[in-house]
Amino acid sequence: MANPIEFFFDFSSPYGYFASTQIEVLAGKHGRDVQWRPFLMGATLKLMNLPPNVEIPLKGDYARHDFDRTARWFGVPFRTPEPFPVATVAACRAFYWVDAQDPKRAKEVAMTLYKAYFVEGINISDAENVVKVGTSIGLDADALRAGVGEPTVKERLKAVTDEAARRNIFGSPFVVVDGEPFWGTDRLPQVEKWLANGGF
Amino acid sequence: MANPIEFFFDFSSPYGYFASTQIEVLAGKHGRDVQWRPFLMGATLKLMNLPPNVEIPLKGDYARHDFDRTARWFGVPFRTPEPFPVATVAACRAFYWVDAQDPKRAKEVAMTLYKAYFVEGINISDAENVVKVGTSIGLDADALRAGVGEPTVKERLKAVTDEAARRNIFGSPFVVVDGEPFWGTDRLPQVEKWLANGGF
Repeated sequence: MANPIEFFFDFSSPYGYFASTQIEVLAGKHGRDVQWRPFLMGATLKLMNLPPNVEIPLKGDYARHDFDRTARWFGVPFRTPEPFPVATVAACRAFYWVDAQDPKRAKEVAMTLYKAYFVEGINISDAENVVKVGTSIGLDADALRAGVGEPTVKERLKAVTDEAARRNIFGSPFVVVDGEPFWGTDRLPQVEKWLANGGF
Repeated sequence: MANPIEFFFDFSSPYGYFASTQIEVLAGKHGRDVQWRPFLMGATLKLMNLPPNVEIPLKGDYARHDFDRTARWFGVPFRTPEPFPVATVAACRAFYWVDAQDPKRAKEVAMTLYKAYFVEGINISDAENVVKVGTSIGLDADALRAGVGEPTVKERLKAVTDEAARRNIFGSPFVVVDGEPFWGTDRLPQVEKWLANGGF
């Protein structure tokens, strides 16, 4: 089987959420698996000397408007949560704790966390809320609570975030197909063409 | 006839150039005219406290890669010029001098300036190069040289650039359809859907 597609995203990124609703179907059409790789975009923005989009003058209001319109474009439920953006350390760690045992189940965790934050407005920067979201899909609360505190899980998140910076993966979503980098939900049509033709 | 589409762009913006190759056909399909409105994005970036994309750490290299791939996506000739980006005051003024007399002809000026910079690598920050590009499509060199220095032309460019900032038009290309703002070449599919359905 061909290489899996790498799907980098931040749990506080609306465009990451939109892409998460599309990427598996897109990849599946071309016989590819998807490797989900949440990371901490805040660390990368620091290296770039950039604030989050919604805090940039002129751009902030447009960004919020574009979130809503792009949700309608994809036909997916969405509401800009408050607070926004938030720290996603707990969400990422929950993902990697499950991922180490069962990558498929970890995708379910990711989709559920995205839905909790961007559809239900649950503040996923709160570790206890992450635990609650986990239990809603059958994870054990105590095991999850202990899991997100494990040194190997913390190390894993740090390693992926460092790797993202090293590979110039600076935004969310960021899709890599056989080494070719694509930034943004709006590059998914180019991803599709790349998969269909092996490049263009 | 329905309102014209407003097409804001910077002459030093690759994505503005890509959009310029698409916007007339797209608008025409939906019975719309296009009002071309070059402005000085540098002034807007200052208000946003942002450097040009290619000067942002991590993002810069990706941006150059994406320019080339997006040119292939649209099937249009392109080469990142050197120097890049450049000041576009002379190019904008030449446009508005012609635009005051003949808006249709001004579009030809714009397309020729874009081609000069992004296909032929001519440095259009140099006012004499702008004059040369103008003469290549039959404009009179002396009249153009005098025209770009006219106070009304200078005023016009300043007014459009100020208007862009006032209306939160912060990037290039930036398309406005009946008041609805769309930033980026990658939003043209959303522009198309908006035009087809009168919103979505």
